[in-house]
Amino acid sequence: MEKSENQKKSINEFGKFGLIKHLTGNIVTGNKTTIKGIGDDSAIIDSGKNLTLVTTDLLLEGIHFNLIYTPMKHLGYKAVIRAISDIYAMNGTPGQVIIALGISSKFNVEQLEELYEGISLACKNYNVDLAGGDITSSLTGMTIGVTAVGTVEKNDLVRRDGARPNDLVCVTGDFGASFMGLQLLERERKLFIKDKVTQPDLSGYEYVIERQLKPEIPVSTLKELKKEEIQPTSMIDVTDGLASDLLHVCKLSGTGCRIFYSKVPIDYETSKLAEEFNIDPMVPALNGGEDYEMLFTVPLEMVEKIKIIQSVKVIDHMTTSGSGYYLAGDDGSEVEISAQGWKE
Amino acid sequence: MEKSENQKKSINEFGKFGLIKHLTGNIVTGNKTTIKGIGDDSAIIDSGKNLTLVTTDLLLEGIHFNLIYTPMKHLGYKAVIRAISDIYAMNGTPGQVIIALGISSKFNVEQLEELYEGISLACKNYNVDLAGGDITSSLTGMTIGVTAVGTVEKNDLVRRDGARPNDLVCVTGDFGASFMGLQLLERERKLFIKDKVTQPDLSGYEYVIERQLKPEIPVSTLKELKKEEIQPTSMIDVTDGLASDLLHVCKLSGTGCRIFYSKVPIDYETSKLAEEFNIDPMVPALNGGEDYEMLFTVPLEMVEKIKIIQSVKVIDHMTTSGSGYYLAGDDGSEVEISAQGWKE
Repeated sequence: MEKSENQKKSINEFGKFGLIKHLTGNIVTGNKTTIKGIGDDSAIIDSGKNLTLVTTDLLLEGIHFNLIYTPMKHLGYKAVIRAISDIYAMNGTPGQVIIALGISSKFNVEQLEELYEGISLACKNYNVDLAGGDITSSLTGMTIGVTAVGTVEKNDLVRRDGARPNDLVCVTGDFGASFMGLQLLERERKLFIKDKVTQPDLSGYEYVIERQLKPEIPVSTLKELKKEEIQPTSMIDVTDGLASDLLHVCKLSGTGCRIFYSKVPIDYETSKLAEEFNIDPMVPALNGGEDYEMLFTVPLEMVEKIKIIQSVKVIDHMTTSGSGYYLAGDDGSEVEISAQGWKE
Repeated sequence: MEKSENQKKSINEFGKFGLIKHLTGNIVTGNKTTIKGIGDDSAIIDSGKNLTLVTTDLLLEGIHFNLIYTPMKHLGYKAVIRAISDIYAMNGTPGQVIIALGISSKFNVEQLEELYEGISLACKNYNVDLAGGDITSSLTGMTIGVTAVGTVEKNDLVRRDGARPNDLVCVTGDFGASFMGLQLLERERKLFIKDKVTQPDLSGYEYVIERQLKPEIPVSTLKELKKEEIQPTSMIDVTDGLASDLLHVCKLSGTGCRIFYSKVPIDYETSKLAEEFNIDPMVPALNGGEDYEMLFTVPLEMVEKIKIIQSVKVIDHMTTSGSGYYLAGDDGSEVEISAQGWKE
């Protein structure tokens, strides 16, 4: 029997991750080459000696990028970064990207050339081949589909679900900068609309702008971990926000977590700008997203070894299942971590 | 120096294939695992013993599908077919699909459930695993990104560029049905808008409707070819239209071609409906597209062997480079084949 419109469930009731779970929860994989299907950074496919990792992303104009303040070249660069980041997050090496582009008639060839310049530059910087693609018409705006393919040796694979209680929670880089960069660009855009002569004032905030427009992946840190023989028990790239991505790892691994307020790395520019905007810098740091840093866990025994890696910060540890997800203050206070997009 | 707006090249000047060539023509692949990048049905990646094939497609609402006459379940089914068809076209076997979905708030959960029902059914029918995916918000309408992954033994790989002069040009199935199905759905939609009571009259045209809404891939014919040890010299799946896809093969292989008007297989329903619409049935057969049949070439020596395969028709042969692309009538007349989307 057809349900009436008001009986039909709205998508918002589920939340993004709930919706994916609802729609794909019953799906069983059957091919013996499918090692891991839905639920990690990439699909994992057995290809003999090594594993093949495949991941795909959609970037939609007006949702994932705004062409008013995103130069085409940066957009192309970031599209590649976004896709290959998922391969690195499984401790793999990306080898190829494939781009499917949907464009409306408002775009001209020069803009697409710039887009491909950015794509090519990212491919060059990360030793990745642009191995295919398609261009199709769209009714409105631009859609970019990016698929990345990579490989990893079977023993090197790091998944999201391998964290254990007492593991150290580690991060590369700093958080919230990309989000604050976006707020700044958005503010200057609004000022420009109001008063067509004001030139955007971005001086002193070059770092946050760069983090938003041209993010990079902490590849050298990942290499250092390999060199020091530190194999993470779990890993995820921070794109949805530190809180949301940490909860992903906890829920998939069946652990709780306790991290320290004062240990979450935040850049000076991020804090300063957050102050200007009258927001607590922890808000963008925890929920901003698009940081393209790695969040990973290592066994407690590695505490001395991990300290050697300058570019890694330990923000504290995993706890047992059922002990909750907490953010602790230096004064002993504890706040439960929640994340946008999660609804259960 | 910035070019003025009217100096900037419009996308239409290039045409779709010209644009892809223009933007990606200078791209060189560097990874030793990248066997073939842009230009074939799938990217080809060396994964040791076998080759991994990866292909990605974007389906945009209003361009690739119209939800007024496309049930969600069929849309999901067709999205999978579209992606895995590219793997079959390289003589490979698809193993996994990954779906990235962009949806606006106008959709409800039941619609998405139906979409995933169709996706699951196609996966089941073709022994493919849904191995990953993401759902994201969109401002308007629905966008579906489908990535398919497959494998092929190195010796079995069939590319688009392997046809030679005198090779027989073969096709599976029949052509133009999907296009005529779409015309019929479109006509009934318009009648319905004009006069809200008219029920769509689709009786007698079940085949063309099914070809449009729920296409299938000629897998049994591909298996028969393998069984009979007929290895095509080139192959492509017919999605852009028989003429356009034949030209792809010719241009990549460096051959001309000569096919016979009377040999192109067209179903009775397609001809009958074309007559109703007052169009020559060869127009949808050559330029309609979305047939999901295979076009392939085999050496002339196989002429007797290929005749055994009932589901394959020889529509004639490849010629030497520079001898043009011709469609011959039984009366000795010859027409040059042109295709939508080609511009050089």
